Amino acid sequence: MKQFTIGCFLLFLSLQLLFAQQATIQRVNPTNWWVGMKNPNVQLLVYGPNAGTLAYTLNYPGVKLVKTHTVENPNYTFLDLTIASTAKPGTLKITGKRGGHTLTQSFELKARDKSPKGQGVTSADFIYLAMPDRFANGDESNDKFADMADPNADRANPFYRHGGDLAGASQRLDYLKDLGVTAIWFTPVLENNQPLTNEGGAMRSAYHGYGFTDHYAVDRRMGGNEAYKAFVKKAHGMGMKVVQDAVYNHCGINHWFIKDIPSKDWLHQWPTYTNTSYKYQPITDPHGATLDRRVTLDGWFVPFLPDLNQSNPYVANFLIQHAIWTVENFGVDAWRVDTYMYNDQPFMNRCNQALMDEYPKIHIFGESWVNNVVDQAYYTRNKINFPFKSNQPGGLDFVLYASMNDALKQKFSWDDGVNRFYQALAQDAVYVDPNKLVTFLDNHDTDRYLSVIGEDLDKYKIGLTWLLTTRGIPSMYYGTEILMKNFKDPSDAEVRRDFPGGFPGDKENKFETAGRNDRENEAFQYVRKLATYRRGNPVLHTGKLMQFLPQDGTYVYFRYDANKTVMVATNTNDKEISLDTSRFAERMNGVTSARNVLTDATISDLKLLKLPAKTALVLELGK
Amino acid sequence: MKQFTIGCFLLFLSLQLLFAQQATIQRVNPTNWWVGMKNPNVQLLVYGPNAGTLAYTLNYPGVKLVKTHTVENPNYTFLDLTIASTAKPGTLKITGKRGGHTLTQSFELKARDKSPKGQGVTSADFIYLAMPDRFANGDESNDKFADMADPNADRANPFYRHGGDLAGASQRLDYLKDLGVTAIWFTPVLENNQPLTNEGGAMRSAYHGYGFTDHYAVDRRMGGNEAYKAFVKKAHGMGMKVVQDAVYNHCGINHWFIKDIPSKDWLHQWPTYTNTSYKYQPITDPHGATLDRRVTLDGWFVPFLPDLNQSNPYVANFLIQHAIWTVENFGVDAWRVDTYMYNDQPFMNRCNQALMDEYPKIHIFGESWVNNVVDQAYYTRNKINFPFKSNQPGGLDFVLYASMNDALKQKFSWDDGVNRFYQALAQDAVYVDPNKLVTFLDNHDTDRYLSVIGEDLDKYKIGLTWLLTTRGIPSMYYGTEILMKNFKDPSDAEVRRDFPGGFPGDKENKFETAGRNDRENEAFQYVRKLATYRRGNPVLHTGKLMQFLPQDGTYVYFRYDANKTVMVATNTNDKEISLDTSRFAERMNGVTSARNVLTDATISDLKLLKLPAKTALVLELGK
Repeated sequence: MKQFTIGCFLLFLSLQLLFAQQATIQRVNPTNWWVGMKNPNVQLLVYGPNAGTLAYTLNYPGVKLVKTHTVENPNYTFLDLTIASTAKPGTLKITGKRGGHTLTQSFELKARDKSPKGQGVTSADFIYLAMPDRFANGDESNDKFADMADPNADRANPFYRHGGDLAGASQRLDYLKDLGVTAIWFTPVLENNQPLTNEGGAMRSAYHGYGFTDHYAVDRRMGGNEAYKAFVKKAHGMGMKVVQDAVYNHCGINHWFIKDIPSKDWLHQWPTYTNTSYKYQPITDPHGATLDRRVTLDGWFVPFLPDLNQSNPYVANFLIQHAIWTVENFGVDAWRVDTYMYNDQPFMNRCNQALMDEYPKIHIFGESWVNNVVDQAYYTRNKINFPFKSNQPGGLDFVLYASMNDALKQKFSWDDGVNRFYQALAQDAVYVDPNKLVTFLDNHDTDRYLSVIGEDLDKYKIGLTWLLTTRGIPSMYYGTEILMKNFKDPSDAEVRRDFPGGFPGDKENKFETAGRNDRENEAFQYVRKLATYRRGNPVLHTGKLMQFLPQDGTYVYFRYDANKTVMVATNTNDKEISLDTSRFAERMNGVTSARNVLTDATISDLKLLKLPAKTALVLELGK
Repeated sequence: MKQFTIGCFLLFLSLQLLFAQQATIQRVNPTNWWVGMKNPNVQLLVYGPNAGTLAYTLNYPGVKLVKTHTVENPNYTFLDLTIASTAKPGTLKITGKRGGHTLTQSFELKARDKSPKGQGVTSADFIYLAMPDRFANGDESNDKFADMADPNADRANPFYRHGGDLAGASQRLDYLKDLGVTAIWFTPVLENNQPLTNEGGAMRSAYHGYGFTDHYAVDRRMGGNEAYKAFVKKAHGMGMKVVQDAVYNHCGINHWFIKDIPSKDWLHQWPTYTNTSYKYQPITDPHGATLDRRVTLDGWFVPFLPDLNQSNPYVANFLIQHAIWTVENFGVDAWRVDTYMYNDQPFMNRCNQALMDEYPKIHIFGESWVNNVVDQAYYTRNKINFPFKSNQPGGLDFVLYASMNDALKQKFSWDDGVNRFYQALAQDAVYVDPNKLVTFLDNHDTDRYLSVIGEDLDKYKIGLTWLLTTRGIPSMYYGTEILMKNFKDPSDAEVRRDFPGGFPGDKENKFETAGRNDRENEAFQYVRKLATYRRGNPVLHTGKLMQFLPQDGTYVYFRYDANKTVMVATNTNDKEISLDTSRFAERMNGVTSARNVLTDATISDLKLLKLPAKTALVLELGK
């Protein structure tokens, strides 16, 4: 009896040991792949307890397991697969073995569908930037989930989730199409299973979406993967495009792989917590110090967004493949890259190239918040012989943003007022193609444009006119068309208010004419008129720009091609001006009349152009 | 008798006709040339009544008259000569013939002397910029000349000539050498036989020297050609260099060739008077209008300075040869080019190349008053693929000038205060060699530095420290070392006051210690100490620069080479700071002590560096 007991105990112990070492697979990322991709290689991240202790094989026609990598953490393995062009769609079985222990894991190789994807955005587009949590709520059942790190939703609290989702945005596509929008850019929709924290009085929200916790899941509160797929499909069906907001630099501190980190060098780690300095100069400064550069690049954006180490090849592959997977799976068309300048730039080039190899028409425009064209040029295809050469086709034009704001805030003087806008464009020689930069008047991180310009509707129209008629790919922040306003102070949430009418129970519905007051309708119709004109007139997409020196508070430029010339004449003064147009003969020679694009009025005498106070005229010239 | 009278009358008439067509030669420019120049070609401008109506020949071993050119005005001819390397020095005779009329003109081909010339200025130098009329008067007999367009001299009137001259400057070379100066740059010394005019209350003086009336004559009021030659010789003998201030863009309206213009296209002519806009953007703007570019480049600088047309080949040759002649004749070492950006840039490249071909070590630094590095880079060897590629080796660093002023005027903030200086240097990636730019805190066209910084001696020392220890070729405006001050308002003359002690009868003599008050001596000794240290320490000439991000109003940079490291630590705050130096390990690793270059004190604990309020420490680090 005693011996039996001991025998039983020993058996129990060895079973225990076996189970302790037993491996299981909980995740494979990417969650699937496709046959027929241009790049035949894919690296699978396989995760689960002791998943890294097995020897893996697979047997599927046309697919080879080329190499298995293990890392510090035994719960991870990385499998390098090549997929021959002859491979057929299907489910392959990955087998893991150690001693007598065997497990299998399915992995699907899908056929590529023919639906549009990676169509890009160009200067023919007009992008609408919305925060999905704050735009429209189409499904109240997904507003909150008790099992998530932030289980709350409360529209009365600016820091809480408000319940907006993809279903809600989907219902507003008609509204956007009518407005003249051709592409929708959402702040990130991926899972942000992050807590709401209060750091010494500073609320740290996650509703903005920039802290991914699972790259392969759209947040349930947005509606999940299927809702995103459906949204893209519907937008495409209406002739609209979708821009994905990507974050490579960091992830959420609640990301599943951060909770069980593959290796110490998965992240940029510091002896003590080190925040980025947010200073861009050390990156491009030929005199810069190594430490300053490291702090900028490898310091953490904020304590709850760990900084991913893209020089770790597994991290790099993970991020690049996720980008490809996203375009292929959801069909998104373009790629806005968050905190672009904080990324490892050689990695960014690899990532961009991988996307462009698979999707030659895709557009990529990163966020590099700098205040001069030299630093801005560094992060896009440029004409400066920097030691590093970026391959990014686009970029968000922060220099032009600041200049357009200054131009309307400042009084006209030698270098100020509208000269700022003119001078920013005058430095376009540093870019390979400035027409591929995405222009904007404000965004979710800035004061709202209307407040910046003192809620002046005349100035508002001038800025929108510039945005929609100068070079570049215009983008507009949601609500600008209905005169949403506010400064960031006291918190970012002030400039991220809910779109009135987007939420059940809203008393006002500004998606509809009747819900808007006269001033709001005037603004809405102004944007709509111009955006619609822009959509139909290639001269505003690809026509050349010619600008003349601002004089006496006026500023005149032309967009022109072989077929058409559009003149944009701005008077930033508080009084009407009669503008002698003889200076503009290079573009107006032979012009006998013009049509005011905004009023449809015909102007037959163009020698002295009457420019009302604080107005930008858009004139289609005729001969 | 009657017949005789008629005969006499006819004879008289034909004599008249003969004399009317008779040609004489009044000028040949260049006034001489040399054998043994690298470029064998020279084009002589021959001027005199009907000089262009003759057929020219010459007969001199090794010299060929290759081509004779005539232009609209019959008083000019241009003779293309080639001078073989075998030609010997001597005087050649140029013969002009028409019908029976013959004249001969001597032209001297000199031997090149071996005296130093075109030695260049480098970052090992310290340039002193003086206005010779306002610096020192060494010869009262040349203060004024009754036969000149402005026959007056009066020190009581800021717009009149004050009598300063090369003899006076020559007497002060000891003073400058003692101060640590290694190169003297005068505002132009060439003849400016221009009137003093009053244009609607605005006095138009010529004492500044920028309106040449004869390229081949140094102004008599400066002492003439011989005085300049003597000055250069004396400076060279003392180991100092001389910078010539060149003006290609325009000349004085009283220039002899303007009074009898060779051809209409000798100048940029406009249907009605057109001033330059002084705007640089149209030159580099890829969207710029042709007219704006033409107005900037071809508009006149002011009504009394006609704009030379450098695309006229005779004008171009005239200017280029004058540059070569000046270096060869006077022995000057470097070339400051006035209003550089207003010149025809392909011409500037030809001119620069001609100088560099003959004098490979010469340095050229033009004045292009712009406010951003992109436009500044355009006018020097740069790393931006502009459609036009400048070959200018240097340039005046207006961007750094503005940034150093702002850095000391503004309070420290995210982008302001000392960040301005840091940020300007951080954009050096656009230049091929930023160390060849000439740096300055002020000049004859700006407010004086001391006034800009509120006459604060602490700030004064910081700025001078930066100037003398950061990258580039430092230049200092005369009188800065004795705390001369003033704003340009109400007129430029305010910042061009006489150097006290430079003029007969001056009650104060600030060239001498005893003539300066304590504060002035403190300033003088500060500059002297630093300039002397700089002169002896190559690390401040050619050492690399490493700068660290400014923090809390402090800014630290290093100059370093294989032999030495110099640390410059600035505290712009109003209170002392203890600076933790661990951030600077990249340059301070292993450093155990330092010598304060300004006080010669030794610092043995460098971990926490005490930085007094408003101070820039210069520390030579030891291991």
